[in-house]
Amino acid sequence: MRFAETDAQGIAHNSNYLVWFEVARVAYLEEHAGGYQRLRDLGIEALVLETHVRYVQPARFDDLLVVHARCVDVKGARFRYEYAIERDDTVIADGWTAHATVDGTTLRPTRVPTWLSDAIASADRPAAARPSS
Amino acid sequence: MRFAETDAQGIAHNSNYLVWFEVARVAYLEEHAGGYQRLRDLGIEALVLETHVRYVQPARFDDLLVVHARCVDVKGARFRYEYAIERDDTVIADGWTAHATVDGTTLRPTRVPTWLSDAIASADRPAAARPSS
Amino acid sequence: MRFAETDAQGIAHNSNYLVWFEVARVAYLEEHAGGYQRLRDLGIEALVLETHVRYVQPARFDDLLVVHARCVDVKGARFRYEYAIERDDTVIADGWTAHATVDGTTLRPTRVPTWLSDAIASADRPAAARPSS
Amino acid sequence: MRFAETDAQGIAHNSNYLVWFEVARVAYLEEHAGGYQRLRDLGIEALVLETHVRYVQPARFDDLLVVHARCVDVKGARFRYEYAIERDDTVIADGWTAHATVDGTTLRPTRVPTWLSDAIASADRPAAARPSS
Repeated sequence: MRFAETDAQGIAHNSNYLVWFEVARVAYLEEHAGGYQRLRDLGIEALVLETHVRYVQPARFDDLLVVHARCVDVKGARFRYEYAIERDDTVIADGWTAHATVDGTTLRPTRVPTWLSDAIASADRPAAARPSS
Repeated sequence: MRFAETDAQGIAHNSNYLVWFEVARVAYLEEHAGGYQRLRDLGIEALVLETHVRYVQPARFDDLLVVHARCVDVKGARFRYEYAIERDDTVIADGWTAHATVDGTTLRPTRVPTWLSDAIASADRPAAARPSS
Repeated sequence: MRFAETDAQGIAHNSNYLVWFEVARVAYLEEHAGGYQRLRDLGIEALVLETHVRYVQPARFDDLLVVHARCVDVKGARFRYEYAIERDDTVIADGWTAHATVDGTTLRPTRVPTWLSDAIASADRPAAARPSS
Repeated sequence: MRFAETDAQGIAHNSNYLVWFEVARVAYLEEHAGGYQRLRDLGIEALVLETHVRYVQPARFDDLLVVHARCVDVKGARFRYEYAIERDDTVIADGWTAHATVDGTTLRPTRVPTWLSDAIASADRPAAARPSS
């Protein structure tokens, strides 16, 4: 947890959780599918359609957080991620995000590439932005 | 829409919507209940329990956005806000946030002050971060 | 001053000043030269080469800040901005930024367009992100 | 480099460098002086007085950056940090920040504690936010 991510309540501002979800999403793609940049190089962008965060306990400056991310429900051009943020093996927040893959130029929906949905299907356990101990 | 709020997709990063919701929440409290600072001066903090955003159309640099906010469902120490973000009278995103009022020192739940719930009850139309034309 | 811009010291995080400088820079271009988007539409990007901020007094949540910006020293592909941030007519921070205009595709330096340097030369007083009272 | 840190130019927004400087500053204090939280626990806050960044080459999404930080010039209540940000052993940005230690309650200047200035004096090489290879 960066100091810049705190607010005047002395805890992490609620908007940062969406950034942390994204960091874990990028790590997930890196681990299972060659990275987000590979998608971008193919001219495919992933738009965010919906986000949901549940804040269970505040995160504080210098907390070491583990963000678990898992891609679920790939269907056509749509996919979803589920997340859990842990501190000392306790979940302090969770949530999910919904996405659509689109052509980077036309922004029209385009199916999730087969190699990516295959990679996701074969990923049988969540990735973490930092390896949990 | 600030340039700093864009990302490499050329659109507003999804985390900014939670900041915009907050700006509208603060404007709502200002208009209906003497301001967020009044709550803080009373030693009351409002924690964010849950956030939900639905992204309908991307926001782009220099877009003039109107963020409608409305406080709903005040019950004990809990309350909720609903939001709609408009560009040229078209909704480009909406969402809701759930909150709890807590004692700023002990962080224990404390009832929403009566003057605040009364003010909210008497507010019969949504406030906007910028007046819509 | 947005609540999301505060940090655990209860004041504005130092990085936000660069965002506020940019907001004023964009307002300056809007007022004097048809807007930053006009530059982008011409395939010209303005890169940031150097930034400097001097923090005189902390900014706090809900402060109404006026950011004065002035473009100075246009030379070839280079230009500079100077800034002063005021609260209640007192300067609480100042600074400057140095920029280069580049071709948006090749990222090679390209002269500041004449219409822009002319517009800057004829601007005889600083613009403000919000009109000062 | 996080995706959320990019802007519509496809590169890191200039304000993030101040956040990265801070991350390295915190890592430096952790390595040499028991951590920033130790200062805060003693009721001492470090205010930022001045920041300067020189952007040499753009940082891009997913770049692995090493941020070198070094505390220099401790004098009374004042101290300075110098930074260099490297990608693949090439400096892509550098800068410095000036600070003052203040009493966390009164915000009056208070001398940098001896154990901290001693720790800084004995630190003979820069710390890095990520270990360089």
